[in-house]
Amino acid sequence: MSLLVVGSMAYDDVITPAAAVSDALGGSATFFAAAASFFTSVNLVAVVGEDFQQEEIAFLRDRGVDLDGLQVEPGQTFRWKGRYLENMNDRETIFTHLNVFEQFNPRIPEKYRNSDFVFLANISPELQLSVITQVHQPRFVALDTMNYWITGTPGPLREILKKVDALVVNDSEIRELSGEDHIIRASRAVQAMGPRTLIIKRGEHGALLAHDENYFFCPAFPVEHLQDPTGAGDTFAGGFMGYLARCGQVNEETLRRAVVYGTAVASFVVEDFSCKRLRDLSRREILSRVDALHAMTRFDTDAFGLAED
Amino acid sequence: MSLLVVGSMAYDDVITPAAAVSDALGGSATFFAAAASFFTSVNLVAVVGEDFQQEEIAFLRDRGVDLDGLQVEPGQTFRWKGRYLENMNDRETIFTHLNVFEQFNPRIPEKYRNSDFVFLANISPELQLSVITQVHQPRFVALDTMNYWITGTPGPLREILKKVDALVVNDSEIRELSGEDHIIRASRAVQAMGPRTLIIKRGEHGALLAHDENYFFCPAFPVEHLQDPTGAGDTFAGGFMGYLARCGQVNEETLRRAVVYGTAVASFVVEDFSCKRLRDLSRREILSRVDALHAMTRFDTDAFGLAED
Repeated sequence: MSLLVVGSMAYDDVITPAAAVSDALGGSATFFAAAASFFTSVNLVAVVGEDFQQEEIAFLRDRGVDLDGLQVEPGQTFRWKGRYLENMNDRETIFTHLNVFEQFNPRIPEKYRNSDFVFLANISPELQLSVITQVHQPRFVALDTMNYWITGTPGPLREILKKVDALVVNDSEIRELSGEDHIIRASRAVQAMGPRTLIIKRGEHGALLAHDENYFFCPAFPVEHLQDPTGAGDTFAGGFMGYLARCGQVNEETLRRAVVYGTAVASFVVEDFSCKRLRDLSRREILSRVDALHAMTRFDTDAFGLAED
Repeated sequence: MSLLVVGSMAYDDVITPAAAVSDALGGSATFFAAAASFFTSVNLVAVVGEDFQQEEIAFLRDRGVDLDGLQVEPGQTFRWKGRYLENMNDRETIFTHLNVFEQFNPRIPEKYRNSDFVFLANISPELQLSVITQVHQPRFVALDTMNYWITGTPGPLREILKKVDALVVNDSEIRELSGEDHIIRASRAVQAMGPRTLIIKRGEHGALLAHDENYFFCPAFPVEHLQDPTGAGDTFAGGFMGYLARCGQVNEETLRRAVVYGTAVASFVVEDFSCKRLRDLSRREILSRVDALHAMTRFDTDAFGLAED
């Protein structure tokens, strides 16, 4: 089924303990769309400047991403520069130049308005609300956000939370949003704000899915040669939503599998800078990592006679 | 099969953000034996002072723990006082009075020397080596240790690591022991020191089993009302070893289940101070939490036609 993403496209300068890259393709919508394109066709709405390269557009178009919603505006594309610390978890921002993204006003093309699945990547809650009013009765809407909006624009964020089916956040964000330190209490508090479904990203510790009162834990795939964590969360979200849209139905079983597929795709993107690893990734490789995640979590519950004692 | 534990017995003063207790039964051998006793009979070797109460001995004896190896020496029992911080993960030690534990010289009674399964709780590597020389060809020996021995007595620790089948540690300990930050590289480095099997405890993020080249991730059971984390690791180890001894065979399948049973029992002990929650715990409750852990991790790998594309 059709999948719409609204988010950012960017050029990133990234420094890690091992290497550095400049003008690398980045942005939430980019990673999301590239990841989701392994599973379904994607409609993309974002804004770039006149400096944006045709080769990036060709890369996404070749992957089946519809770019008729890409707005090209006078000026420069969003640019971010950051440095990862030794542990590859913490990072510091060196600069953020919003450029054309500062005036981003997402216009959803008529042909995207019947999209069944919608992902509102990390943009302001006001813009997320404006997207929601432009689409007709989607089946499943998922939202990303960040601490900046949680503390900066809590009112609009509460508004959009009432209108979405799922929230994709990391554990520090859900703790901040709920005011609860315990992850289960935090989940319940945020579910009470609207979304039935939460996907909580926990970095090297994997992801937690809360759907109604059920919980599902998926470990991270233990990537040995981590190169660049940039975009891992958006890639996860792209794999998650792409798999769900491919299934066409949302229930406990498909949500669990979607978390695993998202985990698998995200485990590849961090193996190289930017979204380079997604360029030559095969579906076979994704499936093989899904199988590996299954092998790393399965067990049977043989009680060895305990129940009879 | 028979299971031997050698470790400490103590009285603890514990302060948490919610409450405080004094003279609470503690010590690695205590938590271990109480947990393992749900699965098998346990032989215990430890030392206590003349102040040690008969009711604690009766509690363990009633649970099927053989205490003929308990050494009672002139003086006071080991005492520890600590305070947990708001997050319940970090703690500070207020005092440690080793008392009779300072001169602990474990003597393994003749009738324990044929124990099939042996757990060397967190005591000095020299004492762990002395225990190993006293037992005859056990099937499976597991070891606990801590940063204090990793940095303080690396030589004897390397010696004992060569002689054991499994190491039970937390993630900061395995990183320190291996000098590797990445958990999989750290595991491989420590396996190369001797043990085929590692059980890495990750607190609220669960446990990782490394057995040869296979990995198994088990989440922590999400306990909502955490009262006192003291003894959680030893209780986990007791459930793990107790279940293995009950099975009587060690392989990928039984090790995985043992990790899950250990996780389940540990999830109960933190719900109350000391080992109080183990006193009225039923096997039915343990099995129900094992089932819950299974429900929170299972998924199928339906590729929805991806493989054919």
